[in-house]
Amino acid sequence: MSSSIGRIVKCSVFGESHGEVLGCVLDGLPAGEPIDMDEISLQMSRRAPGVDKSSTPRRESDAPHILSGVLDGSTTGAPLAMVIKNRDARSQDYGEIARLPRPGHADYTAFVRYSGFNDVRGGGHFSGRLTAALVFAGAVCRQILRRRGVHIGGHVLEIHGVRDTALDPVNIDTDLLENLSSQRFAVIDKTAGEKMREEIEAARMGRDSVGGVIEAAAIGLPAGLGSPMFCGVENNLAAALFGIPAVKGIEFGAGFGFAKMRGSEANDPFEYSKDGRVVTIKNNNGGILGGITNGMPLILRVVIKPTSSISLPQRTVDLHTGENAEISVRGRHDPCIVPRALPVVESVMALALLDLMEAEKR
Amino acid sequence: MSSSIGRIVKCSVFGESHGEVLGCVLDGLPAGEPIDMDEISLQMSRRAPGVDKSSTPRRESDAPHILSGVLDGSTTGAPLAMVIKNRDARSQDYGEIARLPRPGHADYTAFVRYSGFNDVRGGGHFSGRLTAALVFAGAVCRQILRRRGVHIGGHVLEIHGVRDTALDPVNIDTDLLENLSSQRFAVIDKTAGEKMREEIEAARMGRDSVGGVIEAAAIGLPAGLGSPMFCGVENNLAAALFGIPAVKGIEFGAGFGFAKMRGSEANDPFEYSKDGRVVTIKNNNGGILGGITNGMPLILRVVIKPTSSISLPQRTVDLHTGENAEISVRGRHDPCIVPRALPVVESVMALALLDLMEAEKR
Amino acid sequence: MSSSIGRIVKCSVFGESHGEVLGCVLDGLPAGEPIDMDEISLQMSRRAPGVDKSSTPRRESDAPHILSGVLDGSTTGAPLAMVIKNRDARSQDYGEIARLPRPGHADYTAFVRYSGFNDVRGGGHFSGRLTAALVFAGAVCRQILRRRGVHIGGHVLEIHGVRDTALDPVNIDTDLLENLSSQRFAVIDKTAGEKMREEIEAARMGRDSVGGVIEAAAIGLPAGLGSPMFCGVENNLAAALFGIPAVKGIEFGAGFGFAKMRGSEANDPFEYSKDGRVVTIKNNNGGILGGITNGMPLILRVVIKPTSSISLPQRTVDLHTGENAEISVRGRHDPCIVPRALPVVESVMALALLDLMEAEKR
Amino acid sequence: MSSSIGRIVKCSVFGESHGEVLGCVLDGLPAGEPIDMDEISLQMSRRAPGVDKSSTPRRESDAPHILSGVLDGSTTGAPLAMVIKNRDARSQDYGEIARLPRPGHADYTAFVRYSGFNDVRGGGHFSGRLTAALVFAGAVCRQILRRRGVHIGGHVLEIHGVRDTALDPVNIDTDLLENLSSQRFAVIDKTAGEKMREEIEAARMGRDSVGGVIEAAAIGLPAGLGSPMFCGVENNLAAALFGIPAVKGIEFGAGFGFAKMRGSEANDPFEYSKDGRVVTIKNNNGGILGGITNGMPLILRVVIKPTSSISLPQRTVDLHTGENAEISVRGRHDPCIVPRALPVVESVMALALLDLMEAEKR
Repeated sequence: MSSSIGRIVKCSVFGESHGEVLGCVLDGLPAGEPIDMDEISLQMSRRAPGVDKSSTPRRESDAPHILSGVLDGSTTGAPLAMVIKNRDARSQDYGEIARLPRPGHADYTAFVRYSGFNDVRGGGHFSGRLTAALVFAGAVCRQILRRRGVHIGGHVLEIHGVRDTALDPVNIDTDLLENLSSQRFAVIDKTAGEKMREEIEAARMGRDSVGGVIEAAAIGLPAGLGSPMFCGVENNLAAALFGIPAVKGIEFGAGFGFAKMRGSEANDPFEYSKDGRVVTIKNNNGGILGGITNGMPLILRVVIKPTSSISLPQRTVDLHTGENAEISVRGRHDPCIVPRALPVVESVMALALLDLMEAEKR
Repeated sequence: MSSSIGRIVKCSVFGESHGEVLGCVLDGLPAGEPIDMDEISLQMSRRAPGVDKSSTPRRESDAPHILSGVLDGSTTGAPLAMVIKNRDARSQDYGEIARLPRPGHADYTAFVRYSGFNDVRGGGHFSGRLTAALVFAGAVCRQILRRRGVHIGGHVLEIHGVRDTALDPVNIDTDLLENLSSQRFAVIDKTAGEKMREEIEAARMGRDSVGGVIEAAAIGLPAGLGSPMFCGVENNLAAALFGIPAVKGIEFGAGFGFAKMRGSEANDPFEYSKDGRVVTIKNNNGGILGGITNGMPLILRVVIKPTSSISLPQRTVDLHTGENAEISVRGRHDPCIVPRALPVVESVMALALLDLMEAEKR
Repeated sequence: MSSSIGRIVKCSVFGESHGEVLGCVLDGLPAGEPIDMDEISLQMSRRAPGVDKSSTPRRESDAPHILSGVLDGSTTGAPLAMVIKNRDARSQDYGEIARLPRPGHADYTAFVRYSGFNDVRGGGHFSGRLTAALVFAGAVCRQILRRRGVHIGGHVLEIHGVRDTALDPVNIDTDLLENLSSQRFAVIDKTAGEKMREEIEAARMGRDSVGGVIEAAAIGLPAGLGSPMFCGVENNLAAALFGIPAVKGIEFGAGFGFAKMRGSEANDPFEYSKDGRVVTIKNNNGGILGGITNGMPLILRVVIKPTSSISLPQRTVDLHTGENAEISVRGRHDPCIVPRALPVVESVMALALLDLMEAEKR
Repeated sequence: MSSSIGRIVKCSVFGESHGEVLGCVLDGLPAGEPIDMDEISLQMSRRAPGVDKSSTPRRESDAPHILSGVLDGSTTGAPLAMVIKNRDARSQDYGEIARLPRPGHADYTAFVRYSGFNDVRGGGHFSGRLTAALVFAGAVCRQILRRRGVHIGGHVLEIHGVRDTALDPVNIDTDLLENLSSQRFAVIDKTAGEKMREEIEAARMGRDSVGGVIEAAAIGLPAGLGSPMFCGVENNLAAALFGIPAVKGIEFGAGFGFAKMRGSEANDPFEYSKDGRVVTIKNNNGGILGGITNGMPLILRVVIKPTSSISLPQRTVDLHTGENAEISVRGRHDPCIVPRALPVVESVMALALLDLMEAEKR
């Protein structure tokens, strides 16, 4: 308990970094939804390592193989199970990893949680590699959402202090969002993107890593989605998004910026749009009031901490000898996972939003 | 769906701002836990309005009345139901409120969600007044947690840009935390607290409001609490804390600060403490790694947006006429709800953490 | 954990037999549903004790008081909370009850489950009196279902071997069902009803009690309601109906009678009705195939064990002295609760079916 | 929604009869539990077709392949995923099946539920073949339970009116139960077993099928397991057991037999056993009082309807032409699935009971 989430559309994730496979079961998908495998591949490739130099040299085809729930190209309504093989895993001796928990990783907490029986190889079930299953799940949900007029996309807003132009919270173009959500290192301002790459490269050269912020949006959501108190859109999205490794914070709309505002600035006045819809003039609330969508773009940001695995020497403990020790994490690791985390964030949003729409039939 | 939360310890909240009562049912509490009504009263009073001039002049005794689940002063294991009467509610005509949704409020989204059948009086079920039930629930859970060595407390970290001294994430004294968690406007630095009050007073004079940030901690949690992916401590706390009205963001440990860090700075090295426990030298991860507690203080921050109800005129729409309109929110409203939201945040933390401890029996 | 049930329409029950109140919270009801209090009273009165001589002399007005969630006579979409006062409870010394667990009751198992902290007075939270809250909840749901064309009703099929005429599983008239569901001791064959009353009276005279079987049906359900494996209509109804004290078995359609059939007899052949709908010629499957409704009447039966509280002396243990003992249960107890359990069964069916319809929006 | 069940130990089942695989994910298993694959194979073989002449000639190796969650022979605490390949599936044209729903099957209801997009081949996700995944899951849980002193087993109590000797509800020997739970056609009275086989053979010769009743028990459960109202042992077991295709009724202890009893007969008097434990002299309640175990053997019975697939001609409808039609189900079908359903019932009991024990840590 528990790599499962969802009330109506449920996702159960399984697998380990260096095990035979990873995968997921999507239970409760609506029937009759065509599944475009090319779009799934595109989204998988955005998360995949090994393509440009900002990411780990580990190469995985990451080709998802659907085991059930799809017939003649469409969902049947039965659970959709999928696996991805771990072709390039290196399963050598893992005794040392088990002894020396890596700072910033789940090695130590998983050791305590599972009394030492957890799979430590490459982080086991806690590995970022598991997010491939989330991207698959999200790529399926995203297609269904798009047919309902909902589009999801995002960009790398910040890496190690370098910031991209933010999304305009009031006007977000469908084409912009779909374009961003098809790129590998999506930014709005290419120059900022270049500077981010420089930060990443500098971290790599320093055997270190860097963190950042992802900004994402969903447009086309109907007003009135979400429920009071514990079943609001924010509750659901936050509960899901903290399932992504390295996410340590989330904010909606102006988020932590609200702490410096007055109400007169923070509030989003209503008005009738030219076509008679109720809109807000600003969108500090990120499209959500009282946990319920108001029809404006849903805007959120999540912070991704720097990759924990760095080859600089770090202090740790030796769980076998009971003495302090030192570790230099070897192996293939991204100096910055923010660009690869972006499609994961979008995917988990798609999963959580489709579940909410199915639960409330909006 | 749904003002209910929890897997083992479940809390179901009901009531409206101007209805007869508000209350909650706590189902799944362990049996045999003594309930100290004085401590509950203390926590209720921290949230209660009408005591100092930073809060609304509305006066409520807010005396919780336990209906079931307690016998001879201890929990019986059966559901604990509680109600608080709304003695001072003003239930006059509410036609105008129903027409003119207040910017920043749930008025419009609830109208869409419930096809206009929602109770609009004072915000109905979306009112901040409902948090009195959360404080009650949390005050019960907090007592149980304390007997297990877990202490929860927090302070107002920021109001409209004025910041208090932050908690030391590595060393948090039980006395400090318990002391903070018994105050009405808890700050660490009294001078900062004074400046915050000035900001609030200035907002009041300007018929406006201000937002802020709450920082809270839990100490004494066992290492190994939480589960991978969607059932981690962060997922559970976030899902619960976004149930508090006006919360628009949450971060753990260094939170959004991670975006400016390198891994070598962000990682928390392990070492053995003098008494042989595994500790971390820093605590940027806020006591949580891979969603699981590591035994260090759990640190989180939530942002509270400025009170939406301000008496300055604001643009809105008239849902009856279909035309743009203007509104000046009348009535009794806090220019800043951050100090009153603090015990609510602590309470919801207590509720979510007790549920997790009961589910995993840690 | 846990007197709560439901995915979308959630019901959380609280209270004790001899506490101040009992009640429930209905969270997730659709908004804008008019609530007819007269119908609720009618259903409450069917379950109420003290009216005819087949039931306990305890008198309760059982008037439900709605605390929240209803405004101007209609549901608001916010949680609907309700309480019923226990006016006639006798709260004298309960030391003896705590020592001598009554055979057939939850006294002993609750003692173990809650380490002796459970409320033993009148059975506490395990009392049949709690079913008043279920009848209220069901009476609300039943009104909503009726507006969707779904009608629920049932009758006492058997008491101590005396059997009523069974419902015709293929043709059930709406009027018959509504008529049955408005009676206090509903039977189809009045003569059988008389004989049942004689059995009950004989049991009373013998300081004993009798059990029986309830048969109930739901008509007008759309075909296609329910989901495979663990979320079928049978799973949901069974999970809910075993929440009624004294229910020890449930069967759908031909139920245990299938054990004596061949497939050629058991199968329900399909045909087109005159108005072009797919119907079955027989209905051994009780309107459910593969967990999903087929549009035929849903038929189920539950067995109610004889009232455990009898004044004949019975062997038990003294939990204080650790020795064998004897008990004669005093107090006011029905010699047969089957007629009063009937509206409870119908009510729980209404609750479970509305939840399923809301979850699947059928 | 939804082939998933469980609160702490969750099981998500996927696959189709004629798809590539079927399988399941077990999320929330305790870590460090050794997995004996031989025992799993034994249980799988009890359910497997093709061994004796009472079952379908279809042959499947049914070898479960574990994909994740097990390392060095023990559970890691991460989700345990498993697949079984469908080697012998015949995936020819299925147009006719889609047109002519088989009486007694889910063909028609799934067609309505999934708007015709469901996989009809061999019953798709509704096929009894999916129970192989349940047997696997149960075989895992059973091993864990046995180490806690809990043993589960059962026998074929009745087939087409021929009855086996019932289990003694008060004294059930561990060896008897473990012996029964290792057999393919487990009965207590071999002569009754022979007569049952004759009934099955007669049905086969008549191109027909027969139903029956399974009786199963769990011994060694701690007293105090289960919770009031909707989370009792009976609720949980019933909700899970109706997940098995063809189950149409369930009863605990004396079950429907209670309808013919008086309270003095039905109640189970308490006494102290020689070793000082509280026991009951009889066990009509099947080890459960108020939804909570009392430490006596848990006894239940489920009825299995006759195999729906029979080759005798039956009336049905043609969904394409909209006219009445006739069908003779061809293919490989058991004339009686009761013996093969027995290990499935035991397995689902193991799954539900382990989940309950983990949730309540009893």
